[in-house]
Amino acid sequence: MLGLMQDQPLLISQLLEFADRHHRDGEIVSRRVEGDIHRYTYKDLAVRARKVANALDAMKLQFSDRVATLAWNGYRHLELYYGVSGSGRVLHTLNPRLHPDQVVWIANHAEDQVLCFDMTFLPIVQAVHARCPTIKHFIALCDADKLPQDTGIPNLTSYEDWIGGASSDYVWPRFDENSASSMCYTSGTTGNPKAALYSHRSSTLHAYAAALPDVMCLSARDSVLPVVPMFHVNAWGIPYSALMVGCKLVFPGPALDGKSVYELMESEGVTFAAGVPTVWQMLLGHMKPAGLRFSSLTRTVIGGSACPPAMINAFRDDYGVDVLHAWGMTEMSPLGTLCTLKNKHLTLREDLQMAIRLKQGRAIFGVDMKIVDENGQELPWDGKAFGDVLVKGPWIVASYFKGEGGDPLVKDSNGIGWFPTGDVATIDEDGYLQITDRSKDVIKSGGEWISSIDIENIAVAHPAVAMAACIGVKHPKWDERPIVAVVKKPGAEVTRDELIAFYEGKTAKWQIPDDVVFVEAIPLGATGKMLKTKLREQLKDYKLPNA
Amino acid sequence: MLGLMQDQPLLISQLLEFADRHHRDGEIVSRRVEGDIHRYTYKDLAVRARKVANALDAMKLQFSDRVATLAWNGYRHLELYYGVSGSGRVLHTLNPRLHPDQVVWIANHAEDQVLCFDMTFLPIVQAVHARCPTIKHFIALCDADKLPQDTGIPNLTSYEDWIGGASSDYVWPRFDENSASSMCYTSGTTGNPKAALYSHRSSTLHAYAAALPDVMCLSARDSVLPVVPMFHVNAWGIPYSALMVGCKLVFPGPALDGKSVYELMESEGVTFAAGVPTVWQMLLGHMKPAGLRFSSLTRTVIGGSACPPAMINAFRDDYGVDVLHAWGMTEMSPLGTLCTLKNKHLTLREDLQMAIRLKQGRAIFGVDMKIVDENGQELPWDGKAFGDVLVKGPWIVASYFKGEGGDPLVKDSNGIGWFPTGDVATIDEDGYLQITDRSKDVIKSGGEWISSIDIENIAVAHPAVAMAACIGVKHPKWDERPIVAVVKKPGAEVTRDELIAFYEGKTAKWQIPDDVVFVEAIPLGATGKMLKTKLREQLKDYKLPNA
Repeated sequence: MLGLMQDQPLLISQLLEFADRHHRDGEIVSRRVEGDIHRYTYKDLAVRARKVANALDAMKLQFSDRVATLAWNGYRHLELYYGVSGSGRVLHTLNPRLHPDQVVWIANHAEDQVLCFDMTFLPIVQAVHARCPTIKHFIALCDADKLPQDTGIPNLTSYEDWIGGASSDYVWPRFDENSASSMCYTSGTTGNPKAALYSHRSSTLHAYAAALPDVMCLSARDSVLPVVPMFHVNAWGIPYSALMVGCKLVFPGPALDGKSVYELMESEGVTFAAGVPTVWQMLLGHMKPAGLRFSSLTRTVIGGSACPPAMINAFRDDYGVDVLHAWGMTEMSPLGTLCTLKNKHLTLREDLQMAIRLKQGRAIFGVDMKIVDENGQELPWDGKAFGDVLVKGPWIVASYFKGEGGDPLVKDSNGIGWFPTGDVATIDEDGYLQITDRSKDVIKSGGEWISSIDIENIAVAHPAVAMAACIGVKHPKWDERPIVAVVKKPGAEVTRDELIAFYEGKTAKWQIPDDVVFVEAIPLGATGKMLKTKLREQLKDYKLPNA
Repeated sequence: MLGLMQDQPLLISQLLEFADRHHRDGEIVSRRVEGDIHRYTYKDLAVRARKVANALDAMKLQFSDRVATLAWNGYRHLELYYGVSGSGRVLHTLNPRLHPDQVVWIANHAEDQVLCFDMTFLPIVQAVHARCPTIKHFIALCDADKLPQDTGIPNLTSYEDWIGGASSDYVWPRFDENSASSMCYTSGTTGNPKAALYSHRSSTLHAYAAALPDVMCLSARDSVLPVVPMFHVNAWGIPYSALMVGCKLVFPGPALDGKSVYELMESEGVTFAAGVPTVWQMLLGHMKPAGLRFSSLTRTVIGGSACPPAMINAFRDDYGVDVLHAWGMTEMSPLGTLCTLKNKHLTLREDLQMAIRLKQGRAIFGVDMKIVDENGQELPWDGKAFGDVLVKGPWIVASYFKGEGGDPLVKDSNGIGWFPTGDVATIDEDGYLQITDRSKDVIKSGGEWISSIDIENIAVAHPAVAMAACIGVKHPKWDERPIVAVVKKPGAEVTRDELIAFYEGKTAKWQIPDDVVFVEAIPLGATGKMLKTKLREQLKDYKLPNA
C-alpha cells in the first residue's frame, strides 16, 4: 500500500522558486572578471534564470542537451545553474585549469551544444572551438559592449545580448526527478576522464544534507562565500543549499588571492566559507603579516585534500574560526563526511577534541560507508584497521556517463552495489573516517602499509618545508620503501639528514622515509592536487641509497 | 536522459541503520510509566527494533498491515516506530485522549491488526477490545512480570515476552519509498476522523527538513526532549530526525507536569525541547515560584496552537531560551513553517525582532504556501491581506485513507493540487506567515473579517484571565459580532466592563467584543485545542446585549 502524500518530484527549479518567493530580497554579491562588485537579489536571479530558459528554448535545445560553462563563481554562472538544469537541460561545468586538449576531448565526449565562458578563458575557447564540432553556440559571459571583435569564434554572442531579448515569463517544467541535471568530469590520473551525471533528485537530497547543522550548518542568517569553484563538483553543492535556506551568497570571481578573498569576507560580513587548503594558505599568508582579524567569519569547511593540522590550529587558535574537515569526491556530489563533534565529546580535553577534528569526519545521513581488506571483507571500526573505503547512497554514482569504465560498483552479500572511492582510511568506534592514503599511493613495506599522507604531514610541519610528496620506491628486500620529495620555502634551508632526524619520535622507525629528494616543484593537477604519477615518472631513475 | 546516481529508496529503516552504525553509543533516556528512568543506546534500539520486526513476521503480518499504539513517548514506542515501519508495516499511533467510542471507530476504520499499549491505557483497551474485531493481538508495553492477570483482554502478551524470544538478526527489506509507513487520524471537529497516510519518502524528506538550522537545528551535540507526544503527528518528526543526526533523545513518558519535565531537562542536559503551549505553561508555572533556572536548554519549538506572546517573552527575557514558533498540522507531517530570523533582521531593534518572532514563521523548503481570497485568487504577501492558506509539497497529504472526505486538493492554473489548511493568515514581504484564525472561526462583521485569535490574545494578556475563547454571534445588522468567553484565574477578579475597557487602544474599535461571558471552563479537544463548536453549542441561547 502506498502512502497518500503529494506526488511532487524533487527538482532544482523548486529551489529557485522557493528563494524567489521566500527570500526575494536576499543578496547575491559577485566580484566580476572586470574587478568590480555586482549586487542583486534572489528575485533578480529568478528573473534572469527564466530568461536563460527561454533563450535555450529559442536555440531549440532539447531536454537533456548539454550546456557547458568555463566560468568563475559569479551570478551569471548561477543563472546558468538554474536556467539550464531547471529547464531540463544538463549543465556541464568544464574545468578551465585543464589542458586545452583535455577540454576538447571532454566537450566532444559530452557532446556539448552550447559553451558559456568568462572572458578570462577566451584564449582557451579560441584554442579549442574549431575542434568541438557539437558546440553550435558560444556565449561570452560579459556585457554586450564588452564583447571583443575578431575573436575568430563563430556565432559568438554576449550573454547579455543572448538573454536580453528573452522573456522573463517561464513556467518551469515538471519531469522525473531522476532526470540528469548536471555533469562533472573527474580529473582521472589514469585513463580517459569520466563524468558523474547528477540528477535533480540527487542534487536536492544533497542540498538538504549539506545544509544540516552537522554539515555546513547553513541558515538564512548566514553570509556564505564559496571559494571552492562552481566548476569543482558544483562548488560542493553550495549553489543549491544556499537557495534552499535563503542565505546571502558572496562569489569571489577570479580573485582567489588572499587579499581579495579577505576584503570580500570583511565587506560582505561573510560568516561561512568553503574551499581547498591552498586558498586558505594564501588567505592566512595575507592576514598574518598584516595582523588582520576576521570580524564576521565563524566557520569554514576545508576539503579537496587533507588539511595540514597546522592550518586547522591557526584558524582556531589565532582567529577563533572553526575549521571543519570534509571528505568527498566528484563521484559523491561531493559530500561524504564532515567533521563535527558529538554531544559526548563536548566535555573532552581540548587536545582530545583536536585529535577528532583532524579526522575527515562522520558520514552524513544518506551516505553509508565501510572499509574493506584486499579480499573485500569488511574491517572493524576501531580507528586502527585501514582499508579501501566503499560508499553507497542516493547522491553517489552508479556508473559514469556513456558507461565509461564499465560498472564501477562492488556488490555486497545483499546484492547492493558500493562505490570504491580509491581512498584508504580507518574508521573509529564513533564512525569518524580518517583518510590514510589513496589506494594507489599507499606504500607497501615488508607486508605492512605506510600512509604517504602521514609522512608528508610530518615533513610540512618542518619550518623550512613548503610542500612534500611521499612515494614508494622499489626495494629488493622490503618490496617498497618510502622517500619524500620536498620543496623548500623561499630562503629556507634544511638538509636531508636534518629532515630525516625530524621524523624521530614522530612515527614508527620503519615508517621513516629512506631518503629526501629536494625538488623545485611538485607537479599539480588541474584541481590543485599533487600528481604523484608524474612525480614517479620524474624520479624513475632515482636509486635508493641503502638498497 | 536520467542521471547516473545510485537508485536507493528513502526508507525509515535507513535512519535506524545509520544511527546504529554511526551513533551506536548515543543515549536514549526514557521516563517509564512505572516512574523510573530507563537508559540505553541506539545500538540497543536497533537490536530490539529488529526483534520487533521478527515478532511481526512470526504473527504473519503482511506488508502494509496496521500496528496500532496507545503509548507515551518512550523507548518501546520508538522500537515500534522502527520495527513496524522498517519491516514494511504501517504504524498507527492512536490518540489515547480520544473517547473510547472514537478509538473503536478509528481502530476499525484503520483495520488495525495489533494494538500495543502502555499500562496507563489498560482501561481504554478493556473498554474497546471487544468492539475491535480486526485486532488479533494485544501487547502490553511492560515487563513480563508486570502483566496483570484477568484483564479480560484475549491474547494479551507483554511486550518483553513478545520480542524476548525473537531473533535480533534481521535484514531490513528494500521496497518502494512511496510505501505507507505510518498513519495519524485528525481530530476533526466535524465529520468522521480522517487519516493522513505518511510514506517512507515523505517521512525521510520531512526528517531532513526538520533538522535544518532554520527549523529545529538538530545536531549530534544536542540532547532533545520531545514533550509533544509520539501520538501527535509522530512527535513532529523528532523520532526520525533524531536518528538522522544522532542526538541524545530524552523521553518524558507520562509525566508531563512542570516538575517532572523540569527535572528531566536538568538531569539529562536537554538543549532542545518541543511541545504545545499548555505544557510550557505548566513548566513555567513550576519554575517561577521556585526561582529555578535552565542550565542547558537553549531553544524550544512551540506549536500546535498559537503561543501567547507573554510566554515567548518569559522564555527569552527571564530564562534566556529562544522560543521558535512553528506551524503545521497532521496533514503536513506536520511542519510547514518555523519562525527564525533572516540575516537582514539581525541588526533590527529588539522590539522589531520580537514582532517577527510572534509570527508563525517562514516556509521550510519542501513546503510551498499561498493565501487566497473567497474566489481562490492569490492574495499579495504584504502582511495585511488575509485569506485561506493553501499548501503543497512532498510531505503534505494528497488525500485521506480510504478516500474519506473525497479529493481535498484545490487545483491551480497549472493543474497542481494544493491542500486547503483551514487556517486563515497573512504573509508578509519576507514570507512570514501569521495565522489570524481558523477559517471556520473567523468572525465576519459588516463585510470585514475579525480574527478570533487576536481577540483572545488581548483577553489572556489581562492578569485575571486564565483562558479566553472568542466566537461570533449572529447580529441583525452586522451579520456577526464577536463575544469572548473567559475563564478567570483562581482567586482573580475582573468584571465585564473592566475587560471591555482593557481592549481600548489595543485593537480597532469595531473589533472590540460586544460582550464578555464568564465560564467555568472552555471545552477542549483530545489534542488540547479549544473546541469552539462545543462552546457555540453551550452558548446557543446566548443573546447579544445590543442586538
